[in-house]
Amino acid sequence: MELQLARLTERIKGHLAKLRCFSSTLEGVTRLPFTAEARQAIDYLTEAMKQAGMTVRLDASGALIGRYEGQTAQTVVLCSHYDSVPHGGAFDGIAGVVCGLELVRELAAAGRRLPWSLEVVATNDEEGVRFGGGFFSSKAFLGLWQPAQLTAIHDGEGVSLAAAMRDFGLEPGQISQAAWDLTTIRCFIEIHCEQGPVLEQQQREIGIVSGIVGMRRYVISLQGRPDHAGTTPMTMRTDALALAARLISKVEDTALTYPEAVATVGFCDIRPNVVNTIAGQVVCNLDIRSRWEADIQAMEDDILGFIRKLARMRQAGCEVSRTLTVRPAELDRTLQGLLENSCRRRGYAFGYLPSGAGHDALQLATAVATAMVFVPSRGGRSHCPEEYSDSRHLAKAVLAVLDTLENLP
Amino acid sequence: MELQLARLTERIKGHLAKLRCFSSTLEGVTRLPFTAEARQAIDYLTEAMKQAGMTVRLDASGALIGRYEGQTAQTVVLCSHYDSVPHGGAFDGIAGVVCGLELVRELAAAGRRLPWSLEVVATNDEEGVRFGGGFFSSKAFLGLWQPAQLTAIHDGEGVSLAAAMRDFGLEPGQISQAAWDLTTIRCFIEIHCEQGPVLEQQQREIGIVSGIVGMRRYVISLQGRPDHAGTTPMTMRTDALALAARLISKVEDTALTYPEAVATVGFCDIRPNVVNTIAGQVVCNLDIRSRWEADIQAMEDDILGFIRKLARMRQAGCEVSRTLTVRPAELDRTLQGLLENSCRRRGYAFGYLPSGAGHDALQLATAVATAMVFVPSRGGRSHCPEEYSDSRHLAKAVLAVLDTLENLP
Repeated sequence: MELQLARLTERIKGHLAKLRCFSSTLEGVTRLPFTAEARQAIDYLTEAMKQAGMTVRLDASGALIGRYEGQTAQTVVLCSHYDSVPHGGAFDGIAGVVCGLELVRELAAAGRRLPWSLEVVATNDEEGVRFGGGFFSSKAFLGLWQPAQLTAIHDGEGVSLAAAMRDFGLEPGQISQAAWDLTTIRCFIEIHCEQGPVLEQQQREIGIVSGIVGMRRYVISLQGRPDHAGTTPMTMRTDALALAARLISKVEDTALTYPEAVATVGFCDIRPNVVNTIAGQVVCNLDIRSRWEADIQAMEDDILGFIRKLARMRQAGCEVSRTLTVRPAELDRTLQGLLENSCRRRGYAFGYLPSGAGHDALQLATAVATAMVFVPSRGGRSHCPEEYSDSRHLAKAVLAVLDTLENLP
Repeated sequence: MELQLARLTERIKGHLAKLRCFSSTLEGVTRLPFTAEARQAIDYLTEAMKQAGMTVRLDASGALIGRYEGQTAQTVVLCSHYDSVPHGGAFDGIAGVVCGLELVRELAAAGRRLPWSLEVVATNDEEGVRFGGGFFSSKAFLGLWQPAQLTAIHDGEGVSLAAAMRDFGLEPGQISQAAWDLTTIRCFIEIHCEQGPVLEQQQREIGIVSGIVGMRRYVISLQGRPDHAGTTPMTMRTDALALAARLISKVEDTALTYPEAVATVGFCDIRPNVVNTIAGQVVCNLDIRSRWEADIQAMEDDILGFIRKLARMRQAGCEVSRTLTVRPAELDRTLQGLLENSCRRRGYAFGYLPSGAGHDALQLATAVATAMVFVPSRGGRSHCPEEYSDSRHLAKAVLAVLDTLENLP
């Protein structure tokens, strides 16, 4: 058993070392959708999937799918994405693909067939960096794209999603062919690095994802008066930045009182934003996430009530619009139980935690039984060159998923 | 007396209506130094000064100087600036020039000579919009410019101050000729709009400026960690923007406890400034002003002590550098007393107040007896198209200064 773990660890490490070179930047990994680097990753993975015993195809969305036939056509999908953010890390997404690949190789090498067929899926444009939205392949699996939409979406240089697909050898008009027959899917499992500090802090090797947080985003526009910073007494000001400061502190104070919730102001546009003028306007983005819909609502009420009242007291304007609403997603309890059983049996340090970020699994969870397995991210860092996960943790995740598949009812 | 006030009011209004058209923008007044609009203002003022009985010259700094000889060569200077900020108002600076002009016309029309000669001075580039520093002419009066400096300073388009001067028909090599023989200056008086809300709020017509506030500016750089806003629990964050928010609130709270003091954070640079990433770095500008040097020091100690301690508690970086230090300036007590006497005798609603902004008078106060007279700014607004001061208030300021000159010992 220790031998198998060592072998998996080395192979995963080897793949990740090669795949990190398919990047348009030297610093960090930059592998945007429909680029030469994306093609290099596909070519590498195609070859590796074939060697591991799979038949391989590229679907209409640019997702690479390696299939390993089992005793029935019912299919377990092991999935993550092959694109990255600009100057991102060598683990986000691609590590999960490599884990699926090595899981199948273990089975194939032993000549074993499970009651289910397996598909290792590397999705395209999960991050949404180039064209905005993200989750491109996973939405295609669910049949959510119309060809007309693909012509309407453009990247920063004005290239449409449809044109980028065509340049890449894909036919936008055939996007619906990427949709899955969901009745053939037994379940969907994604291994991913945590992208947060919790597992490392708690000294866990494996995180079983309990659910995916719901999310609401708001644009809050505070309107003050842009007076002279030298000539306007403190009591005669309507300082939009001072108001925003009270809001940001309130957001922090509020979120600290809710378990499994976070709230963040990460963006402010300050006008005129000069040293000697009191800010006349600040537009902030607020992001609230929690596993519990009721908590999100309570935090919204608390925070927005506070800032509206304070703005009124200070004779400032306050306009709020909610720009995003995502309900919390439940993940499959049976799969969680099987993963837990495996970790206990193998003696892995594991814990449950929610996923605070969106993933392809978030899309699929609405339609099929879905599980996610996290491995620790060093220092909690992700979307940066410093991103690092231990290949030994990834190998343990593979074995936990393998056990789960063997015990799947 | 009422007739004289009405006459002055109409003449001031007439000048301001014409001068506001010498602007490169339709919205608000934009009259930057060394431009066609600046030349139009100079031409207009030259003609008006001559008609008012003055001899006129343009000095080496581009300041326009109209002289009205008195019984001696000792000279009282009535001064303000003819340049504006972009999209500024029709009063800031130019109103004081027009007041000086009409004061001399009153004397000349009555054939009166005072014991002092008068110079009405319209200074160039007080605002510092185009080349940074500002106070260009008033520094030249004090002999503070070396020709070599003029080649080293450039505007946003790479044009050097020296080149701009030459294009305007001035010789940068002769800048020292603009320096005054300070022994010939009896005193320096500037009439200016308040650019703040105090006089209006207190229903005063005339503000006698008690002194000019001292000022310190700081760049405060807060270093956090740019983690994922979804995956990083509240207790594991080092959020630079949340830290900046506490600083901004502290600045407001502190300044409210000091009389005649203001403190402002008007500028923040937030990185990466995106909705779903915790801010990793915020660089703020802090501006503290007070009439009292000891209060400035106490506020600095209080605010910087607070943020350094909080940053330490949150394991954030905090670097502070002081970028500007200006000591409070006293204005001449004798002149203040004479202005007060005039206001009392004429029944003008007057009050004392500090100037919270810099002015040419701030430069001159270091060298000669200096006074400033403020008139109310409607709504406290300035440096914007809405800037407005009542010409009747300006006319009353002219009469108060005229009385002052007649009683000057």
